[in-house]
Amino acid sequence: MRFFLHTHPQLMAIPMRLQSFASAQKWEGGVSMVQGASRGIGLEFVKQMLEKNGKGHVIATCRNPTKATALLELKNQFAERLNVLPLDVTVERTIEESARSITERYGSLNLLINASGILSIPSVLQPETTLGKVQKSSMMLAYEVNAVGPILVIKHMWPLLKVGGLLGIDRDVAVVANISARVGSIGDNRLGGWHSYRSSKAALNQCTVDTDLSRPFQRNVPAEKLFTKEFSVQKLLNIINNAKQRDNGKFFAWDGREIPW
Amino acid sequence: MRFFLHTHPQLMAIPMRLQSFASAQKWEGGVSMVQGASRGIGLEFVKQMLEKNGKGHVIATCRNPTKATALLELKNQFAERLNVLPLDVTVERTIEESARSITERYGSLNLLINASGILSIPSVLQPETTLGKVQKSSMMLAYEVNAVGPILVIKHMWPLLKVGGLLGIDRDVAVVANISARVGSIGDNRLGGWHSYRSSKAALNQCTVDTDLSRPFQRNVPAEKLFTKEFSVQKLLNIINNAKQRDNGKFFAWDGREIPW
Repeated sequence: MRFFLHTHPQLMAIPMRLQSFASAQKWEGGVSMVQGASRGIGLEFVKQMLEKNGKGHVIATCRNPTKATALLELKNQFAERLNVLPLDVTVERTIEESARSITERYGSLNLLINASGILSIPSVLQPETTLGKVQKSSMMLAYEVNAVGPILVIKHMWPLLKVGGLLGIDRDVAVVANISARVGSIGDNRLGGWHSYRSSKAALNQCTVDTDLSRPFQRNVPAEKLFTKEFSVQKLLNIINNAKQRDNGKFFAWDGREIPW
Repeated sequence: MRFFLHTHPQLMAIPMRLQSFASAQKWEGGVSMVQGASRGIGLEFVKQMLEKNGKGHVIATCRNPTKATALLELKNQFAERLNVLPLDVTVERTIEESARSITERYGSLNLLINASGILSIPSVLQPETTLGKVQKSSMMLAYEVNAVGPILVIKHMWPLLKVGGLLGIDRDVAVVANISARVGSIGDNRLGGWHSYRSSKAALNQCTVDTDLSRPFQRNVPAEKLFTKEFSVQKLLNIINNAKQRDNGKFFAWDGREIPW
């Protein structure tokens, strides 16, 4: 299966703290959270992380776990290490409840992947082709889901991520990755347009960059490229797993080479 | 009076159309619109344009004209050439009504300056200093006012601006300028923070760049710089008045030199 990836992964390493927390040390393989895990690239992240890291724990969130059949199948296979929680980025209470649940059960996070995002909803939100088609409701909705949502998730998981930097896994830093992947066979990928979507992603990037505890390193993949879901997640996980404290503030090209700002 | 200018003016030239419109040709000195004109840099634009261009007409909009005393004083002085209209960027109907009124009275626009914007409202919206202080309501409000509002104004004025490019004024193009100026004596201007504000401006820049009819040219002023309101508007008007069709897609430095993308 091949599909279109409109990907702007933005990775952010979180500096390790020097204090020690007993709760964090319990989770030798690390605790990762994937927000927006019911399908697409989020689901693929959950799958590969569970398969490749025999000790790692994964918290997979989605709006409605009871309908996330692919996720529930993984739960049958990895019952001990997969924890599925309901989270809707537009309802902050559900983010807070997830944070509370993760705090009680794990007490730390090493990795947060924000994989949710919307480009279109039939008869509600369409990618705009010209400025004349821009609707206020579409702009506000895309911003709420694509920019504000992930930022609120980072906000509430921040205390857990700061503890997570302590763990004795390969990385010495906790990582936040904001990833947007648009799935679909998009034949007409003209430059310009998509105002609501592009605006919301620009805002998210700006806000991630603004985070006061760290500077991001980014890698951009040309929107024209076609990748398999499996290949994309392999590459992205590779970047995440190799993130070092010293990489803070750097940009990396697709092939791993550092590029100037 | 000296004050702090957090300015990211973004200028966009609109290509001249080849057809001729009788209505446009009536306004020899041009028709300019300043959105957010009750105070600060918007008011200064109105003042300088009326004083420097003896034939030009100016439409000044603000949320509540009856309370805009400085604007009403200008109206006493320039009754023939100043038209004050109510416009609230968060109420799209008022934007549509302004467009209708300008269409009936003038039929064209040569210049649109979006000067409105919010950074803080006491006990409603504060510039955030850390991610932990980011509130959803603040992010949504800043986005609605600073990003969606100006975009909707451009959307509804677009047909007027396309006609305006025809006029026999010095410029051969109509210009849209999005300007955000934060007034105040800000002593503590730390890097980072201001998440809601920065996100909303990033989104506006992204969306302006996306406009399908033209590419922008931009000029960025370091946020640390202190300017008088008068000096700032002189410099900005100078850039606007010298905008040429061939400048489309270029960036210009503060001193007018072209800089690479």
